[in-house]
Amino acid sequence: MIKKSILLFSLCFSFSAFSPLEEGMFPLNELHRVDLEKAGLKIPLNAIYNPNGTSLVQALVRVGGCTGSFVSDEGLIITNHHCAFGAVAAASDPEHDYITEGFMAGEKSKEIPTSIKARITASYEDVSSRVLGGLEAITDPSLRSAELHKNIEKLVDEEKAKNPELLIEVSEMLQGKSYTLFRYQELKDIRLVYVPQRSVGEFGGESDNWVWPRHTGDFSFMRAYVGKDGKPADFSPENVPYVPKQYLKINPKGVKENDFVFILGYPGRTFRNQPAQFLEYQNDYQMPYISQWFDFQIEQMQELGKNNKALEIAFASRIKSLANTTKNYKGKMQGLSRTTVIQDRQKDDNSMQLMVEADPALKAVYGTVFQDINRIYAEKLSTAQRDLWLSQVFSSSGLMYAAGFTGSRQNAYKLVEKKDRKAFLTEQLSSRKDAIGKYAGIAHPELEKRILKALLHYGATLPEGQRPESLAQFAGEKNIKEAVDAFVDKNYGKSLFSDTKKFLDLVEKSPEKVMKTKDPFLEIASDLWANLISYQEAEKKRQDELTILLPKMIDLRQMYEKTTFLPDANSTLRFTYGYVRGYSPADGEYHHPFTTVKGILQKAQNQGDYYLEDYIQQLLNSSDPTSVVCFLYNLDTTGGNSGSPILDAEGYLIGVNFDRAYTATINDFAWNEEYSRSIGVDIRYVLLILKELGKGDHLLKEMGV
Amino acid sequence: MIKKSILLFSLCFSFSAFSPLEEGMFPLNELHRVDLEKAGLKIPLNAIYNPNGTSLVQALVRVGGCTGSFVSDEGLIITNHHCAFGAVAAASDPEHDYITEGFMAGEKSKEIPTSIKARITASYEDVSSRVLGGLEAITDPSLRSAELHKNIEKLVDEEKAKNPELLIEVSEMLQGKSYTLFRYQELKDIRLVYVPQRSVGEFGGESDNWVWPRHTGDFSFMRAYVGKDGKPADFSPENVPYVPKQYLKINPKGVKENDFVFILGYPGRTFRNQPAQFLEYQNDYQMPYISQWFDFQIEQMQELGKNNKALEIAFASRIKSLANTTKNYKGKMQGLSRTTVIQDRQKDDNSMQLMVEADPALKAVYGTVFQDINRIYAEKLSTAQRDLWLSQVFSSSGLMYAAGFTGSRQNAYKLVEKKDRKAFLTEQLSSRKDAIGKYAGIAHPELEKRILKALLHYGATLPEGQRPESLAQFAGEKNIKEAVDAFVDKNYGKSLFSDTKKFLDLVEKSPEKVMKTKDPFLEIASDLWANLISYQEAEKKRQDELTILLPKMIDLRQMYEKTTFLPDANSTLRFTYGYVRGYSPADGEYHHPFTTVKGILQKAQNQGDYYLEDYIQQLLNSSDPTSVVCFLYNLDTTGGNSGSPILDAEGYLIGVNFDRAYTATINDFAWNEEYSRSIGVDIRYVLLILKELGKGDHLLKEMGV
Repeated sequence: MIKKSILLFSLCFSFSAFSPLEEGMFPLNELHRVDLEKAGLKIPLNAIYNPNGTSLVQALVRVGGCTGSFVSDEGLIITNHHCAFGAVAAASDPEHDYITEGFMAGEKSKEIPTSIKARITASYEDVSSRVLGGLEAITDPSLRSAELHKNIEKLVDEEKAKNPELLIEVSEMLQGKSYTLFRYQELKDIRLVYVPQRSVGEFGGESDNWVWPRHTGDFSFMRAYVGKDGKPADFSPENVPYVPKQYLKINPKGVKENDFVFILGYPGRTFRNQPAQFLEYQNDYQMPYISQWFDFQIEQMQELGKNNKALEIAFASRIKSLANTTKNYKGKMQGLSRTTVIQDRQKDDNSMQLMVEADPALKAVYGTVFQDINRIYAEKLSTAQRDLWLSQVFSSSGLMYAAGFTGSRQNAYKLVEKKDRKAFLTEQLSSRKDAIGKYAGIAHPELEKRILKALLHYGATLPEGQRPESLAQFAGEKNIKEAVDAFVDKNYGKSLFSDTKKFLDLVEKSPEKVMKTKDPFLEIASDLWANLISYQEAEKKRQDELTILLPKMIDLRQMYEKTTFLPDANSTLRFTYGYVRGYSPADGEYHHPFTTVKGILQKAQNQGDYYLEDYIQQLLNSSDPTSVVCFLYNLDTTGGNSGSPILDAEGYLIGVNFDRAYTATINDFAWNEEYSRSIGVDIRYVLLILKELGKGDHLLKEMGV
Repeated sequence: MIKKSILLFSLCFSFSAFSPLEEGMFPLNELHRVDLEKAGLKIPLNAIYNPNGTSLVQALVRVGGCTGSFVSDEGLIITNHHCAFGAVAAASDPEHDYITEGFMAGEKSKEIPTSIKARITASYEDVSSRVLGGLEAITDPSLRSAELHKNIEKLVDEEKAKNPELLIEVSEMLQGKSYTLFRYQELKDIRLVYVPQRSVGEFGGESDNWVWPRHTGDFSFMRAYVGKDGKPADFSPENVPYVPKQYLKINPKGVKENDFVFILGYPGRTFRNQPAQFLEYQNDYQMPYISQWFDFQIEQMQELGKNNKALEIAFASRIKSLANTTKNYKGKMQGLSRTTVIQDRQKDDNSMQLMVEADPALKAVYGTVFQDINRIYAEKLSTAQRDLWLSQVFSSSGLMYAAGFTGSRQNAYKLVEKKDRKAFLTEQLSSRKDAIGKYAGIAHPELEKRILKALLHYGATLPEGQRPESLAQFAGEKNIKEAVDAFVDKNYGKSLFSDTKKFLDLVEKSPEKVMKTKDPFLEIASDLWANLISYQEAEKKRQDELTILLPKMIDLRQMYEKTTFLPDANSTLRFTYGYVRGYSPADGEYHHPFTTVKGILQKAQNQGDYYLEDYIQQLLNSSDPTSVVCFLYNLDTTGGNSGSPILDAEGYLIGVNFDRAYTATINDFAWNEEYSRSIGVDIRYVLLILKELGKGDHLLKEMGV
């Protein structure tokens, strides 16, 4: 069903095997470039990917932002526990706490509908020439960028007209260089079948997030339904299970150390084809600032929640989300400091510049590429501290967002006719409502005051020239911190914007009152909002320029390295392979590639991240303590690969991918044999839990186990 | 020089090799019972211990609470950095920060005198029969205990008269069963020779305490001096280096994995010959209560110190001391939950009871041993929660200690004649001054108020009957916490005892004022003081009873296990042996037995526990990254073994012992091949640092390297 896509590269070199061999999130049409048989694959390549017939990729499905795979001919899908979490929460109520207790439908009629939509890659083709066609003559980067996006829209519209039942997307593969059009079949009736208890599916919680050794049963089962006619349809009790073109068969024996394994999935985003300056910016600015800022917020929430159980629970998910990022960033920074990724790229850039200088033909086309990239990044770095802060102001404080929104609409509001004003404001607000009200449920004056104080203090102490005008009032003070604190303490309680839920209500009921309010935070928020808009415009301009420069840099790099590059991950279907393998996370330590039931019992506690109900402990206590739980492999994965099937050399399902080791967070920048390790829940643990805890014999039978 | 001591055992069994083989902190006279040649020792036993000639034990020296060893014929001693820490701190002043910068004397005349005293074991002999002689007829446990101590005092006095120049101590080997008299030569002029920078000697700080893999250069050099006549003397510039009877030679090549190694040293305290109930008490009461209480105090100090650098520094050493204990306790609790140490001992006790029941002769002597031990512990446990709390009240709060001291002397004070009152009080205070003023330097009202609130709340919520009378006032309140908080907030500022420094001054200047004060904390503190005294008396009574029962239990245990036991560690000279060996601290993890310079650079940071000056990082960066730093072995050690020499199969020095792995904290209760691992700094790292960082070529030459 998948049309063989056409490859277009501006420069053509003889392909050698990619080096190092195991690196790479391969688009399916690049697969033939690797000698997979030599690597250990024991089935023919076209059993995995066959544009003209049946193959394993047809068992793949994208569920939400995750990957899943069909494991029966009745649309049964296996994915991660954390991919089903939102749906399970939505299905729960005070009488049915499926989050805590888990959920087993028992029979199809009891499966619970969700709002999850799934998509299957139907076909794709390279559309680079049509996306880039006619752009050669346009020299203005912004104009060119606008035209490029028009080309894409046109393409999508044409394709939609031809295939109204399919989802159409054009994905950028190599920035500014290659584009692929994807056609997806969308399944709209996805139901919950089995979700283990949270203590199993989330065992280890935040403590074990990005951590190996791991003991998390991070899996769940769903089922896709379609209309009686076999076509995708919204939920209806009349719907019937979807019959996939292909489904995965299970190898209940699992794999062993050093075995060949591969993964199919929808990895989200990597940054391997970016210049050295991008990594420097990430390492020196983005990641330190964001992780410090998030850590600060986490600390405040932990402190406020310490002796207040209700608050602790209310803050939990915000903390979890921030902690996930800071831990990832810290892992990446550790990785960049331990490896020479940045230094290597800098060296390469210098060598390439020499290569260009030495060849007049190259110099004519590429002479200023590195210089131009440098100039753009120099500009970006010159205000990076301010811009990173600006980009956090409105997402960190509901008050600032509400005030900024109000201030930035005041002028336009006045220009609208009186009778239309309410509608104007409602429309303006519609797409921002969620963002403004994001923290309304956990609104806590003391927390927001602390955040505001920190935000305003940061801005007020920025160097002259970068400091927004409205914060000059503090900058002149002897003790800036005291002045900011006093301002917030004095005005917070009085502010219309301090309660975002009330604010949103008021916009609906009395827009006039909102737009005419004289609020002490209004001036500051409006000013910062304007500053943020300026920054975003400058940033877009820089990105438009880079969209012209980066394809040239990639050309050079491909010439220099005498190979072609794989596109960065971009949420499209990819293949990655490697081996079950342990690693040394630090001097003196070795981590085995398998964990066992014994380790669960070592970690299990009566509360906290390792909480495990007594009856589950007892059940595991009566199991074989050496029974495998999770396993580790040197495959090249990233976010979006969550839920991806892990397959053995013969294409049997032997696990479900769900995380990476701490040292592998650096994967987003570079794969590394020493450090890149991904984590999956072993099929043996899935089967153990499904049978013993879930009493899921009928599902085992359905999967043919 | 060491007289062969006579062994007395009430029951004699044929000795077999101890099992498991590597367990044991052997008194030297027990050494011949192990086949050390078979174990891997390549020198004759009498090269290690030879009561009639020269041997390695003569190179051993106890320095403070640590162990050291002579490494030259000029009295040069190697021990741990942390064993020299106090002396280095005392030698430092604002101009000479030897703690941070380290210290290298360069030549003998520049070595810095310390207050450290060292002792060498001169000889010892078994005195069990004399200590226990004449006690058989005494049935009252307290009377018997008093007589036993009189016997010991008499022995010591007699021995002192014979050897006035020696230190004499009688040590209890097996509780209530065997006693050894030790004669020590005391060296009184110990000087600092070389101490590396704190960032090297304490690298890893609290984070790495009880942790492997480790990268700490925990070593230092001192030198012992004696009078010109060769006899021990107080410091004098005229003194000359002490010439030890023996000193250790260095093997600069170190050892490798699985090599045989042994340690000589002065391990402090173990509890292996205690009944199951002792372990239960530790596990269920002592360790959970103390670690929670210490954690609480640590949290308060961390919170108060967070945005206050001065306070953070002031609290640092108190936090360090509390954290050292909580981490140790948590390690032990983890160990007890992972192993079956407690359950095994319970099972053994049951089997022994059956063995006793089955034999009328045994039953006559041992019939009620277990029953009696049970009764004693049942009594202890019945008020354990209260007693643990009581035992913390006065050591946690200077206010409570000062108030308790005052209240408990008021009656006696009145009875003393007016003219003698001042002297009476000064005398009473003399031994308690340090304890009362312990935290005076870091007195912090908010910290002490929080501690007081927590202490009083705990006491006020004790069950009726256990709750001290003076706290009844709170127990009746609806909200006990609020009532306690209000009491402390209201009265703290007014209390004479809230500033212990002022209090101590006032006792000297105006004792009358102190003894007549009407302080709101006085009644409570006096009451708790009285309760604590009662508890201590009850506990002494229980210990006196156990001193009669435990020898019987040990008899039974030795009969049952058909072997004899080694005495628990008691700060006397011991030998322990085993192998350089890694281990698995948790499911999926393996820790290698060697760490390398590479790992230091992985951990090194610009602040915090892994702070390492740039110039030291650069120095290490230019060294071989695979050069060994620390190593791990399955030897049986405990506190007091700090600074102990680690020797290879040929008796050469190859490292200095300084810590145990987290899982080995359980050593105090039981040695375990899976978990017991001790940590030493490798001689190769000592030599690297001494040469490259310390510029200590002259010391290397002195040691013959």
